[in-house]
Amino acid sequence: MPDTAQELTALRMAVDAAERVRGTTSPNPPVGAVILDADGAIAGIGATSPVGGPHAEVLALRAAGPRARGGTAVVTLEPCNHVGRTGPCALALLEAGIARVVYAVGDPNPSAAGGAETLRTAGVDVVAGVGADLVERGPLRAWLHRQRAGRAHVTWKFAASLDGRSAAADGTSQWITGPEARARVHAERAKLDAIVVGTGTVLADDPWLTARRPDGTLAARQPLRVVVGEREIPASARILDDAAETLVLRTRDPHEVVAALADRPDVLLEGGPRLAGAFLAAGLIDRVQAFLSPVLLGAGAAAVEDAGVGTIADALRFERESVDTVGPDLLLNLVPVRS
Amino acid sequence: MPDTAQELTALRMAVDAAERVRGTTSPNPPVGAVILDADGAIAGIGATSPVGGPHAEVLALRAAGPRARGGTAVVTLEPCNHVGRTGPCALALLEAGIARVVYAVGDPNPSAAGGAETLRTAGVDVVAGVGADLVERGPLRAWLHRQRAGRAHVTWKFAASLDGRSAAADGTSQWITGPEARARVHAERAKLDAIVVGTGTVLADDPWLTARRPDGTLAARQPLRVVVGEREIPASARILDDAAETLVLRTRDPHEVVAALADRPDVLLEGGPRLAGAFLAAGLIDRVQAFLSPVLLGAGAAAVEDAGVGTIADALRFERESVDTVGPDLLLNLVPVRS
Ligand SMILES: NC(=O)c1ccc[n+]([C@@H]2O[C@H](COP(=O)([O-])OP(=O)(O)OC[C@H]3O[C@@H](n4cnc5c(N)ncnc54)[C@H](OP(=O)(O)O)[C@@H]3O)[C@@H](O)[C@H]2O)c1
Ligand SMILES: NC(=O)c1ccc[n+]([C@@H]2O[C@H](COP(=O)([O-])OP(=O)(O)OC[C@H]3O[C@@H](n4cnc5c(N)ncnc54)[C@H](OP(=O)(O)O)[C@@H]3O)[C@@H](O)[C@H]2O)c1
Repeated sequence: MPDTAQELTALRMAVDAAERVRGTTSPNPPVGAVILDADGAIAGIGATSPVGGPHAEVLALRAAGPRARGGTAVVTLEPCNHVGRTGPCALALLEAGIARVVYAVGDPNPSAAGGAETLRTAGVDVVAGVGADLVERGPLRAWLHRQRAGRAHVTWKFAASLDGRSAAADGTSQWITGPEARARVHAERAKLDAIVVGTGTVLADDPWLTARRPDGTLAARQPLRVVVGEREIPASARILDDAAETLVLRTRDPHEVVAALADRPDVLLEGGPRLAGAFLAAGLIDRVQAFLSPVLLGAGAAAVEDAGVGTIADALRFERESVDTVGPDLLLNLVPVRS
Repeated sequence: MPDTAQELTALRMAVDAAERVRGTTSPNPPVGAVILDADGAIAGIGATSPVGGPHAEVLALRAAGPRARGGTAVVTLEPCNHVGRTGPCALALLEAGIARVVYAVGDPNPSAAGGAETLRTAGVDVVAGVGADLVERGPLRAWLHRQRAGRAHVTWKFAASLDGRSAAADGTSQWITGPEARARVHAERAKLDAIVVGTGTVLADDPWLTARRPDGTLAARQPLRVVVGEREIPASARILDDAAETLVLRTRDPHEVVAALADRPDVLLEGGPRLAGAFLAAGLIDRVQAFLSPVLLGAGAAAVEDAGVGTIADALRFERESVDTVGPDLLLNLVPVRS
């Protein structure tokens, strides 16, 4: 008799394991797997290796060893069926004697899908959809979006005062948000595929846009830096240093930007207000991350300009996905309400 | 052996009872009281009556009857000691045979204080400070502020998009927030002593500023409506109708406004952006209530203008008191960080 509460707990652990490898598995999805032995105890945990290495299920099975026999595999994504660089995970699960497979999300990739069917045919008890929300909003968010929509997932992140200003009247903006929010932004940058800004931000702030550790050193992995706009940026701009790759896109068309990033599923738009307005107006923002600081300014640049809204009936509407406190600040995650 | 968890639960009920009479007890504070019998069971609940009527403790004792003997009184404010229009509550508690009194906040009013001392002297077990936070932030907030600071408590309420706009580019603003937030604003208005706006809001929006029930009818109690600014407002302005009293203050000095409202402890500043900026710059805002709607506008009037902040180091800083969701919107309560 399977204990579904235990399985949901295992799924949460699998999500955490996947989240830890997010950003290191491309072009493979960051997947997490947990093996429960026949008594329901945790026997092994695994997460996708960098490309060419073993998949999550295989690592979790290795950790579990003989305890996998008669046990349950709890996986964030449907086990793959294809014979790629590694053998199919469905087969590995069968060979290890797994009796039950619980997974969150079906594989939308036709060449990998079918694992559930293979397992069922072989007599394994298969349950789909457990914790699907956690996975779709979590580690597989960008990868699933890329598979389903055929383009990168774009998050627009901004930091603003409670009255929606990104800088004070004299242009100063360091720091609107607290150290906890800034640390979180840097930790997230290291997991992304690309960070996009407009020429305006480069010319005004000359940012590095690198992912840095709390001690200021560069993170091991750096996202592609992307500058968008027709103006030339100086050769001395920090964004052109060799701490990370940089792509200069001399366009004003957000669709062109998204097309240029087609094989980088997880894209962060970091501003500024005019480029953000253009992406919003083009309907190309898939998530808004608003860091709101408990300060008021009463003057200074707005967080977003010219999003194509003239009247309240045309306001860009979002649905709240989560609200968290990050030190003194609030972090809101929102997704567009498609009308 | 008193059960302190039971007493805290009783205190929460007393807070709820007080909250229900807030706005109807002036000049007396809205107080709530719960009597627990000797076994710790709820025996009676009471809240302050309109002026001239019995105090919370007396009503709770009446409801409890003989069950009060040997019991505990749980009160949001120290029982009064003075002989006003009603006898002192401390004496009523003694006469009823109450063995223990638990209260949240001491009475800062010298003519009423001393109740705790009287009770202790008579051999009653007295505990102060239980749930003080709930009461100080809740029903007694404005009354305590008036007693301690000698002036009205001013809440600035605003409704804005996530990017801090109070209206779209064409001036439309109905509705940025959802029906739940609007219903809450109306329910709150009926409990207030005064609502303040600038001439700019009257000339632009011609609001009624009355408290209305969900069906649109006028609430029984209406706060004083206050218009601030040097410009004349037309005699036909809705705010001058006779649904409620209106005070026109032809000044631009926020201190003068607060002084004119000295015996109205609970004041709500409803805007607009320039009057709010002037109050913020003068340090006269005791609480900010921000209703943030999950929409983006990218253009339109800001929620606050000219708060006297030129550079980020001078940002007006607040501490988060609470964050709630109200339908699709967020409600943030913040208090100033006094530097
Ligand atoms: N608080 C935050 O979260 C945050 C984040 C980033 C930046 N900022 C602030 O934003 C300020 C810069 O503002 P900004 O608006 O100039 O920055 P921006 O949005 O980064 O850059 C604006 C430029 O983007 C280019 N662009 C590309 N496509 C566009 C389109 N469809 N429509 C309009 N412009 C397009 C244009 O450059 P060309 O003229 O070269 O074509 C335009 O001048 C800085 O002071 C920075 O501190 C704040
Ligand atoms: N979303 C919201 O929460 C909200 C709430 C209210 C209003 N609003 C919007 O705000 C807009 C009106 O903006 P507003 O700024 O004109 O409104 P306002 O702040 O209500 O009125 C501004 C007027 O207040 C007077 N005033 C008094 N003391 C002042 C001082 N120390 N400094 C500056 N002015 C002072 C001035 O009038 P005199 O020139 O007559 O002296 C000034 O013109 C309307 O469109 C309305 O819809 C939004």
